[in-house]
Amino acid sequence: MRRSLLASGVVVRPRSTASATPLDRWLAARLQRSIAPAGVGVELWDGTSTHPGGARTGDLLIRDRGALLAVLLNPDLQYGELYSAERIDVRGDFATVVEAISRVSIDAPISWRERLALWAARPNALVRARRNIRHHYDLGNEFYRLWLDPQLVYTCAYYPTPSARLEEAQVAKLDLVCRKLRLMPGETVIEAGCGWGALALHMARMYGVRVKAFNISTEQITFAKERARREGLYDRVTFIEDDYRNVSGRFDVFVSVGMLEHVGRRNFSSLAAILRRVIDRPAGRGLLHFIGRDTARPLNAWTRRRIFPGAYAPTLAEVTTEIIEPARLSVLDVENLRLHYARTLRHWRERFTPAEPEVRARFGEAFCRAWRLYLTASEAAFAIGSLQLFQVLFAPSSAGTVRWTRAEVYSELAGLL
Amino acid sequence: MRRSLLASGVVVRPRSTASATPLDRWLAARLQRSIAPAGVGVELWDGTSTHPGGARTGDLLIRDRGALLAVLLNPDLQYGELYSAERIDVRGDFATVVEAISRVSIDAPISWRERLALWAARPNALVRARRNIRHHYDLGNEFYRLWLDPQLVYTCAYYPTPSARLEEAQVAKLDLVCRKLRLMPGETVIEAGCGWGALALHMARMYGVRVKAFNISTEQITFAKERARREGLYDRVTFIEDDYRNVSGRFDVFVSVGMLEHVGRRNFSSLAAILRRVIDRPAGRGLLHFIGRDTARPLNAWTRRRIFPGAYAPTLAEVTTEIIEPARLSVLDVENLRLHYARTLRHWRERFTPAEPEVRARFGEAFCRAWRLYLTASEAAFAIGSLQLFQVLFAPSSAGTVRWTRAEVYSELAGLL
Repeated sequence: MRRSLLASGVVVRPRSTASATPLDRWLAARLQRSIAPAGVGVELWDGTSTHPGGARTGDLLIRDRGALLAVLLNPDLQYGELYSAERIDVRGDFATVVEAISRVSIDAPISWRERLALWAARPNALVRARRNIRHHYDLGNEFYRLWLDPQLVYTCAYYPTPSARLEEAQVAKLDLVCRKLRLMPGETVIEAGCGWGALALHMARMYGVRVKAFNISTEQITFAKERARREGLYDRVTFIEDDYRNVSGRFDVFVSVGMLEHVGRRNFSSLAAILRRVIDRPAGRGLLHFIGRDTARPLNAWTRRRIFPGAYAPTLAEVTTEIIEPARLSVLDVENLRLHYARTLRHWRERFTPAEPEVRARFGEAFCRAWRLYLTASEAAFAIGSLQLFQVLFAPSSAGTVRWTRAEVYSELAGLL
Repeated sequence: MRRSLLASGVVVRPRSTASATPLDRWLAARLQRSIAPAGVGVELWDGTSTHPGGARTGDLLIRDRGALLAVLLNPDLQYGELYSAERIDVRGDFATVVEAISRVSIDAPISWRERLALWAARPNALVRARRNIRHHYDLGNEFYRLWLDPQLVYTCAYYPTPSARLEEAQVAKLDLVCRKLRLMPGETVIEAGCGWGALALHMARMYGVRVKAFNISTEQITFAKERARREGLYDRVTFIEDDYRNVSGRFDVFVSVGMLEHVGRRNFSSLAAILRRVIDRPAGRGLLHFIGRDTARPLNAWTRRRIFPGAYAPTLAEVTTEIIEPARLSVLDVENLRLHYARTLRHWRERFTPAEPEVRARFGEAFCRAWRLYLTASEAAFAIGSLQLFQVLFAPSSAGTVRWTRAEVYSELAGLL
């Protein structure tokens, strides 16, 4: 395990052998009440169990007293921690139980812990940003190759039909972004957060544009450069291992797919300043593709600690108020693709499951369980609407590059597929 | 002239016969500097003239000293006032000169007068709302029939192709709204601000829904009721002469085309409360179609005084922050149709021009000039991007009525046309 996702903090304890006390049973009843609407029962380490009443979705198996207490005190963080540590298990279909439990709290008002997290969010300065990004994206290309599509596109796909395969849907997404942006041969594009380079290479190959693509993940940029060389696109796509904030010059197009979540709200004003500068041309335009929320609240505490440190999924109101408007840009088009992200995550999970023995062998049981939960819970969040996926197309207010109608985006796309 | 648009305040003075003094020439030079980038010259009442330098778009003819002073002191209000009163005239193509002058100030920072107007905006209480709406919409159906399409659709049209005719484009807009909303036979729809009823009748006729349509303009609602009766849709469409805030019950769909501009920002929270209540269903969804801005500023002072009292064109950020988010709704789709509104306004103007003798005969010269300017300046505002036209589609966060892709909206539309 390279830079360990779970290098510290997760303690895997042996299961308790003590019998549940009356206090334990009282705590179990409280836990049961909180998840009863999900149809999920509770079973303690000695076999003591409670029933949700009504149809049964599955059971939470609590392995020790500490786990019982912890999950009651701070469920937002502890479900993830304790599941990873094998101190909580699930009986029944894992995805069904995770979605059912997620749905119970969807309308919960924002908690004091969440308010604190919003308030305490630190700006992702250049150094911190690098550390946060490497935590997740430098796990090794081999790891991501186990369950992503062959091009390693690690963002929401676009399924032209619900039955499309992941590979097709990722290509369709790359192309949808290009069509929305109406790329023309010879134009210049800046891409902020380019992942393994699939979009940059697609834009250059299929639309004849010149791309400068930024990323601060070493593993990804090395892969992308090698691919550009191999595919003969090295002269048209420049991959730069640097923070997008260091971009200079002007471009026809700005595009960023799946990076805004890592920018952090405190940095929105600097992103606005960059956007305003880099596409300040009569034909300038741009697209932001990002995980968002309908109301402002931090990501789940466990996700922030273990999966995406420094990440924040903004509301459309925050993005328009803090980025688009200060950058003097005009919103041309917004599309919410949350159901496509739920589908994408299901496809990732369906590939992750058979790869689990290999993941476990390389990264350990706790890591494997953490990723299983992360993929499953994320799918649930998009399916039930606690997370959204927005694509926002914009241009300087008086830009002349507005498409006459959207219809051509879809007729062209229909022709491609 | 019924409820007079220009009943008071506009003084039509005879042209000055005095020669321009050195002070007048100094003021004219200041005016000339402010509009020089538009390529527009200045000519005073005695023939004294100044040149913008470079290519000439046209000239402003200033008819008296008071007009010269007033337009310098408060151009936002006085261009409209003085043009209506024949104290300013335009030499050259009217639309070209208006657009050129509008473009000069597009990047102007917000003035203290505009800040004051934003701050002083009063909530449109029920009584005030009625007065404001009747001011504009109760000018008489005959007036609007002179220059709108036969269905009297007085909102931005949707041109499937740039060469579509106004009538086609209005039908295409009505249908686009229905397609975006994915109306199903038997569903219930609430329409807030229904104009002369074209959308309500289209929804009922083409999609088999039941509509309750609200409007506080007496003239419009009378016309709409009569049309529903004549077309045999009286059982499926109920036109109600009342404020949308008095709506009760729950519906599958909320739709409002061209009303939000009249709601006023102080009433956004009550609209949010209504939206949250009326479409709080698993299949609930809604659409707001409205004139918007990229950055918050009041409408032009003259427009607010003479054309649309109480109106405000909100930013997308204001709508998402103050309506969508408090209503716990999820934005599914946003489309900016500003170029379609510029085209619509051009078509209206092209019909208005030949009808001017009739307008003048009925309402007087000042009214006729005011409307000529209003239509022309509005076209310019959409063309240059100082006004936007947003269609925002939304649904409760966990609604299950989300379309899989937009493609079907456009393929269906293509089939229709």
